[in-house]
Amino acid sequence: MIAIRHRIGIDAPQSQVQQALATTAGVASWWTDDLVGDDTVGGKLQFYFGRPEPRLVVEVMDVSDDRVGWRCLEGPDEWVGTTITFELSEADGETVVIFTHDGWREAVPFLGHCSTKWAYFLLGMKAMFEGGRATPFPGDLKISSWG
Amino acid sequence: MIAIRHRIGIDAPQSQVQQALATTAGVASWWTDDLVGDDTVGGKLQFYFGRPEPRLVVEVMDVSDDRVGWRCLEGPDEWVGTTITFELSEADGETVVIFTHDGWREAVPFLGHCSTKWAYFLLGMKAMFEGGRATPFPGDLKISSWG
Repeated sequence: MIAIRHRIGIDAPQSQVQQALATTAGVASWWTDDLVGDDTVGGKLQFYFGRPEPRLVVEVMDVSDDRVGWRCLEGPDEWVGTTITFELSEADGETVVIFTHDGWREAVPFLGHCSTKWAYFLLGMKAMFEGGRATPFPGDLKISSWG
Repeated sequence: MIAIRHRIGIDAPQSQVQQALATTAGVASWWTDDLVGDDTVGGKLQFYFGRPEPRLVVEVMDVSDDRVGWRCLEGPDEWVGTTITFELSEADGETVVIFTHDGWREAVPFLGHCSTKWAYFLLGMKAMFEGGRATPFPGDLKISSWG
């Protein structure tokens, strides 16, 4: 499968990082400040990137201490059916997050855009835990004319 | 092939961005401030990330107005034999850079680390052209205990 992959280490307890990935309030703090839904397994999360259209709907597949996983139900054509997972572990005195956005059908330029953008948001989340600040939508850097 | 992919748009002429990718002085401005070699096709570039050991040697495969390509000859085991390409184009009033680090044999965690780190350096290059500053090694953010 064609996938976007990232890995970061965060100077914060795994339980705190897990909350930033597993809860609507947590995800709102680093990805988009406008999301609603049920963040338990089987629930659906709706992410907005500028109202009124819902831009992305995911089903929560996994929530545990060391894993959060979503499956994309609605959104950009290229995203529908893909999975987004965050694997958590503690190593070397930090919480490691391994990020995988898997199931892309083609290695289109939009994949590259999303890959760079995921890195940007993940580094923002890291900053949030380490004395800096995250930059969720709409305050995020526009990395190209695509957003 | 397993690849790292990124895409950014830069508010600068393509010719200027091309110079940042195709010349030793250019690459030093955003990736590592310590590199030497011959940046013409067939030449070899040696990148250092802390002396005395050379950490990475690439052969320059392509240099044109719209493409810069390298093949990794020496470096981390996972990198040897991989190719790194930057494709340039102008669209929507910006210079688009499509980055591909291709030929990875396995989707190991180190690939995720490198993916995030490439995004970080490419966003630094973008900032450099847009009134901010790049953050080449050794002034780069350490995104985990891995560097």
